[in-house]
Amino acid sequence: MVGADIEGLIKFFSKMPGLGPRSARRFVLYLLKHKQQKLLPLIDLLAHTAEHVSECTECGNLDTENPCTICSNQRRNKAHLCVVEHVADLWALERSGAFQGIYHVLGGTLSALDGIGPDELRIPYLKQRIQSNQTTELTLALNVTLEGQTTNHYLAAELASPGLKITSIAHGVPLGGELDYLDSGTLITALAARRTLETEES
Amino acid sequence: MVGADIEGLIKFFSKMPGLGPRSARRFVLYLLKHKQQKLLPLIDLLAHTAEHVSECTECGNLDTENPCTICSNQRRNKAHLCVVEHVADLWALERSGAFQGIYHVLGGTLSALDGIGPDELRIPYLKQRIQSNQTTELTLALNVTLEGQTTNHYLAAELASPGLKITSIAHGVPLGGELDYLDSGTLITALAARRTLETEES
Repeated sequence: MVGADIEGLIKFFSKMPGLGPRSARRFVLYLLKHKQQKLLPLIDLLAHTAEHVSECTECGNLDTENPCTICSNQRRNKAHLCVVEHVADLWALERSGAFQGIYHVLGGTLSALDGIGPDELRIPYLKQRIQSNQTTELTLALNVTLEGQTTNHYLAAELASPGLKITSIAHGVPLGGELDYLDSGTLITALAARRTLETEES
Repeated sequence: MVGADIEGLIKFFSKMPGLGPRSARRFVLYLLKHKQQKLLPLIDLLAHTAEHVSECTECGNLDTENPCTICSNQRRNKAHLCVVEHVADLWALERSGAFQGIYHVLGGTLSALDGIGPDELRIPYLKQRIQSNQTTELTLALNVTLEGQTTNHYLAAELASPGLKITSIAHGVPLGGELDYLDSGTLITALAARRTLETEES
């Protein structure tokens, strides 16, 4: 048997998303063999991140600064707000480099079955932010799933108000697809082709 | 842009063997979302391992104990010594569960081109261990590569002595193959079919 501590590390990594037992072993052995150059810097980086990471109180992004790097960036357009389900979706849009506004992470989608209503989803705070940021455009970038589109329609109806343009990223996103799995090219197209939703006020 | 610290972590993980940018992102996001249950225990485990890990002064295995878990196990047969190139090979043999003796990690293979001779490979210490452990069987489990087999022949000739049976794991191992990539079944077969090498003394 390999030593218990090292076996524990391998087991830990082999349960992570995207890693299996073989890659976990190779990964751990690599770290142990490069203690000074890799293992110790990794521990420092993880410890620093763990100490400082928090949900951005503005948008809900995860970052070691609060407000997060995006919310505190003066060059971002604070009047353009993009609504996403999860932090992974926000990161996917950031990788595309096509969006210059700020975000709002809902934390999920409406689901009557699971008892998830607007109050569970940071929707009340979304309304506050639209007012305080004097948002002129709200872009809905929810996943193209049944729950995502239900939430999409709910938000379009609920948030409609004079002077607020509500858009949705284009249906270049394949049905059943999730933002985190898409290539940046598709996301760029979807953002460029965003369309104004028909609301009672418009 | 995602925050610099988090981006740094993703970059670090995406350069690890077996991980790419996408799996690194999913992995980091998973850790950040489960700070208490996953990230903090991982830091503790890594820090503890980094503090205690070292090369076993006996066999050359990497472990948080010295002598390592294998060398200090009283139930292992100290008279049966198995020579491997790397720690990864030792771990592969341990996973097969077919070997009950102890190991000796050479740290590589002989290579005239790269200037690696016996003194660079813990071969002098191997001779000492054979004497002090009163080894009765020496099993060579080097990779079936040109360098591995050259080293195999060198060791068989160099270490031959009365009372020492020198065996080599069977050629069930495919040519060009490396132990770390093989399934345990093949390794079990190869260990069971080990054969005595023809030396001048035998």
